[in-house]
Amino acid sequence: MQENISDILTKIGYPSDLRALPESQLEDVCAALRKFIINEVSAHPGHFASSLGVIELTVALHYVYNTPYDRIVWDVGHQAYPHKILTGRKDKFSTLRQMGGLCGFPTPTESEYDTFAAGHASNSISAALGMAVASKLEGEDRKVVAVIGDASISGGLAFEGLNNASSHPNDLLIVLNDNKMAIDKNVGALYNYLIKITTSQRYNQLRYKAYTTLRRYNLMKDSMRRAVIRFNNSLKSLFSRRQNIFEGLDIRYFGPIDGHDVVSLVHFLRKIKDLKGPKMLHICTVKGKGYEPAEKEATIWHAPGKFNPETGEIIKENSEGMPPRFQDVFGKTLVELAEADKRIVGITPAMPTGCSMNFMMERFPDRTFDVGIAEEHAVTFSGGLAKEGCLPFCNIYSSFMQRAIDEVIHDVALLNLHVVFCLDRAGIVGADGPTHHGAFDLVFFRAIPNMIVASPLNEHWLRRLMFTATKVNGPMVIRYPRGRGSEVDWQCPLEEIEIGKGRCLKQGSDVAVLSLGPIGTEVTKAIAIAQQKGRSIAHYDMVFCKPLDVELLKEVFAKFSHIVTVEDGTVKGGFGSAILEEANSQCYKGKIDCLGMPDSFVTHGTVSQLYGLCGIDAESIAQKLI
Amino acid sequence: MQENISDILTKIGYPSDLRALPESQLEDVCAALRKFIINEVSAHPGHFASSLGVIELTVALHYVYNTPYDRIVWDVGHQAYPHKILTGRKDKFSTLRQMGGLCGFPTPTESEYDTFAAGHASNSISAALGMAVASKLEGEDRKVVAVIGDASISGGLAFEGLNNASSHPNDLLIVLNDNKMAIDKNVGALYNYLIKITTSQRYNQLRYKAYTTLRRYNLMKDSMRRAVIRFNNSLKSLFSRRQNIFEGLDIRYFGPIDGHDVVSLVHFLRKIKDLKGPKMLHICTVKGKGYEPAEKEATIWHAPGKFNPETGEIIKENSEGMPPRFQDVFGKTLVELAEADKRIVGITPAMPTGCSMNFMMERFPDRTFDVGIAEEHAVTFSGGLAKEGCLPFCNIYSSFMQRAIDEVIHDVALLNLHVVFCLDRAGIVGADGPTHHGAFDLVFFRAIPNMIVASPLNEHWLRRLMFTATKVNGPMVIRYPRGRGSEVDWQCPLEEIEIGKGRCLKQGSDVAVLSLGPIGTEVTKAIAIAQQKGRSIAHYDMVFCKPLDVELLKEVFAKFSHIVTVEDGTVKGGFGSAILEEANSQCYKGKIDCLGMPDSFVTHGTVSQLYGLCGIDAESIAQKLI
Repeated sequence: MQENISDILTKIGYPSDLRALPESQLEDVCAALRKFIINEVSAHPGHFASSLGVIELTVALHYVYNTPYDRIVWDVGHQAYPHKILTGRKDKFSTLRQMGGLCGFPTPTESEYDTFAAGHASNSISAALGMAVASKLEGEDRKVVAVIGDASISGGLAFEGLNNASSHPNDLLIVLNDNKMAIDKNVGALYNYLIKITTSQRYNQLRYKAYTTLRRYNLMKDSMRRAVIRFNNSLKSLFSRRQNIFEGLDIRYFGPIDGHDVVSLVHFLRKIKDLKGPKMLHICTVKGKGYEPAEKEATIWHAPGKFNPETGEIIKENSEGMPPRFQDVFGKTLVELAEADKRIVGITPAMPTGCSMNFMMERFPDRTFDVGIAEEHAVTFSGGLAKEGCLPFCNIYSSFMQRAIDEVIHDVALLNLHVVFCLDRAGIVGADGPTHHGAFDLVFFRAIPNMIVASPLNEHWLRRLMFTATKVNGPMVIRYPRGRGSEVDWQCPLEEIEIGKGRCLKQGSDVAVLSLGPIGTEVTKAIAIAQQKGRSIAHYDMVFCKPLDVELLKEVFAKFSHIVTVEDGTVKGGFGSAILEEANSQCYKGKIDCLGMPDSFVTHGTVSQLYGLCGIDAESIAQKLI
Repeated sequence: MQENISDILTKIGYPSDLRALPESQLEDVCAALRKFIINEVSAHPGHFASSLGVIELTVALHYVYNTPYDRIVWDVGHQAYPHKILTGRKDKFSTLRQMGGLCGFPTPTESEYDTFAAGHASNSISAALGMAVASKLEGEDRKVVAVIGDASISGGLAFEGLNNASSHPNDLLIVLNDNKMAIDKNVGALYNYLIKITTSQRYNQLRYKAYTTLRRYNLMKDSMRRAVIRFNNSLKSLFSRRQNIFEGLDIRYFGPIDGHDVVSLVHFLRKIKDLKGPKMLHICTVKGKGYEPAEKEATIWHAPGKFNPETGEIIKENSEGMPPRFQDVFGKTLVELAEADKRIVGITPAMPTGCSMNFMMERFPDRTFDVGIAEEHAVTFSGGLAKEGCLPFCNIYSSFMQRAIDEVIHDVALLNLHVVFCLDRAGIVGADGPTHHGAFDLVFFRAIPNMIVASPLNEHWLRRLMFTATKVNGPMVIRYPRGRGSEVDWQCPLEEIEIGKGRCLKQGSDVAVLSLGPIGTEVTKAIAIAQQKGRSIAHYDMVFCKPLDVELLKEVFAKFSHIVTVEDGTVKGGFGSAILEEANSQCYKGKIDCLGMPDSFVTHGTVSQLYGLCGIDAESIAQKLI
């Protein structure tokens, strides 16, 4: 039987093959997909639990809709594995997230079935609405479906899309995939609201049945008045909790229905497919569905790494003797700081585990705020807290911080409020690829008045910068990358450092390298290579991108006729450009090579592969020094 | 009588004076405020209609709440004139929006009564929530009130704030000031929803009364079943339309009530002031209330300029023989382009009049989309339209575009979609001040891969750039400032220009000035001054900030040992830095002076005053050339 089920996938190259199957085989397709994904992801790590949750939905959508003519827009594309498998990419699936292989997210350049970018949450409704409106304008009878999770829908962009869904003629279908989970546990009122819809429905249906029975048997007498009142109260709560938010926005609402009954899903989608106007189908799914360990602990199984598919044992990387992850140093240092300084509060938009603010959350639950997928709110809320004397540490992944640049400018920097922004995942992130690289933060933050911009070479400097950040009088940003640093013995004393002071790591006479952040460890390796070729290279860790250490640079400019800058970020306006600006101010006439991410979107791969691609690995840097 | 009413304001220096008055005098205070504002704004132009609409609310809030200990957070601060007048700034009010005078928006550095920045819409709930949560943490019994309009509440940030309002312990009051208007007419489903709340309330109250009467007289018999069903249907619509959205988000909802009955407002605020938990009071007001011409045409009276307070006649600037406004050239050219090219659609977030997309809206209503205050959606929606073959011209003010940088990167540039971003109000905007200057767009957009970044010297070049933008194959941004250009005869033929080509406006031998955009007209004047002193200055209009004209720069670098760059934007990473990067690439050894906005927030004043302050007016530029 298992063999037969697996065989069925070999028959499905593309959705047209799926659509040729009878309904009776769809459950087998789902079972085969599930088995395929469990086997593949256990060996080639990637996102896991969310894809298992949407297998039935994916099969039903491609079965009912005429893809790729009809459009499916996935919100947060790490749920799109079954979609990729059904759309011509099963045989390449083992290359997922590897350099040159499939992208971990839907990517229009990879397949015509991938309709839009889906790395950042909450964009599907607006994008799909654009597609649906365009189809209407062009007289096409194209159907467009946006699939959005209950976590993504809390983002402001999603709300803006919902609020506009009924403003223009379109027949958009929004599938709300409600699995009660973001990566971490979901938060926010809308989330509670969705729970209420789901739990109250059955109860209210019973009430309704009771009432119609009363009426049928002519029992609605004066003596029943109290029952009527109670009934009305329940109706009130039924409708106040049920239709409203979405129907209040003029979107027809259907559901909630079971998202794991593929045949029902097919029937339901067929029924509503041709309805005019925007509509929402609310389905309930289980993250990790069909794989028991994942169903039980969905946060751990969001992206579990390698695991044994039979036993569910996650094969842990042997980290003994390795330096800690920057995020953990952040998380633990934050607790230390918060213990000593009552003003400190922590803010994260839906990433307590990802940025390790869960340590703070456990220790100081009342002083830690997970605001859900809502980067803009995270920043402005931090501004409000700071205005009243709290000292917020607001941790946002660099690429997601792009969502809140205006709030950093308008709600924090303009008021010179003391908010510490910690940007995790700054620079190259590796397998998640172009949507997730933190390429732009140095450029953006450096342009903002009042802002102090720093990046630590290693764990010790992260701790020193965090401690120092509690002593300043305005906004400060500390950026650091995904992954591990270089100091096993990370728990150095907390020391204040001077704002805007860089330091010489190594003296030299031929070339000076100026680096910012942990990419400096690549520079150290590069210098070792160059030294073997007889070159004498100086190395300066600038620590601060803003303010720059003008005095130190004066020395460097005086001593060296060749300077190389190295940063883990785009070269268009970043750290290197800051050095160029200062060099120009100081009338430096030597040569400056600026190394960093290029002016193009960087693909996915391992971090070291991508450092190589960008020319900021040790080998590439060394070539500039020889 | 009129005299007496005016006198009352002289007694109110601060809200404590207001609170010393009996309730019976509050209407007089409102009348006096109204008269004061009408007289002041008629002579010293500023925002008008929205402040008239919140006079009663402002008086009631300062009367009931213990300001400044309690906090009032105004969303979009141009409604805060009565607030400023009541909080110690009446005597300086005539300096509003003038350099050195009062800021047109609440500004914490100006007054402790101004609690937060309020230039960009939709931030009040998040900021006030931060303040309210901080007060709880600090054990303060401080009350915090956010005042937000029905237009601002459609922004994603406001929704994120609402969604989080019940997540943390706080007693925040959100006053929803519902005047059925943004600057232009409001749009979106939430807006329609608010209308439904308001119009359905009275009807449903009648229903409810009828029902309770029936019950009281024991008439709820079997024969009444149909009535009961009908009643239930009305209850259903009552509650599905009424409590829902906000109560669905666990925010207690009160209202709607009349926002122009100051005594009722006082009573209502007193009743709900000490209620625990987050709550919303929905008040209905009329924009322009108490000044008939403004009540009738609120869009025109949003910021009418000088007018005759007696007759309501707006004193129009005599524009005969003057060059047109850039926005009108944009608006009219867009219609021309759209007539010839069916792919073209227009998108504006709530600024059809401000950016002159109203021309397109009249001519092609089905191809023009005002999405309300929702910059993020505007961009992602444009991406979706472009993905399906439309050619969106998305017009957003430069400083508001900061809200949608991630969407530009993730939903447009990454997919290399053909969207034309037109940034109105780029550079110094004048009286609106630091929240509204478009200082950062060149930095941000230049860093984004695939992006073409251009700015026209004058109206002719705006038209050429817009036409050229229809011919490219990816995203392009065209930035231009507030106000008028320099070409009276603006309607030149539409010609395609070469992407990335600058041009020499004037030959010279001593210094080369490289400018971008209309600030080039200041350069022309500066060169005239320098010429009088015997200097020979060359002038290059680079047109494109990205890609730069590398060939032209090669000539310039070869010929000149002194170069001056001039831009109407920040010098930290902008056009000048782009020139520095290229100069470094080409090993240029001469001197480069980069002129532009400084690395600090620029205050308010006239555009020419602020050009002077930033050193980019003709005189200042000339000094660099002599």
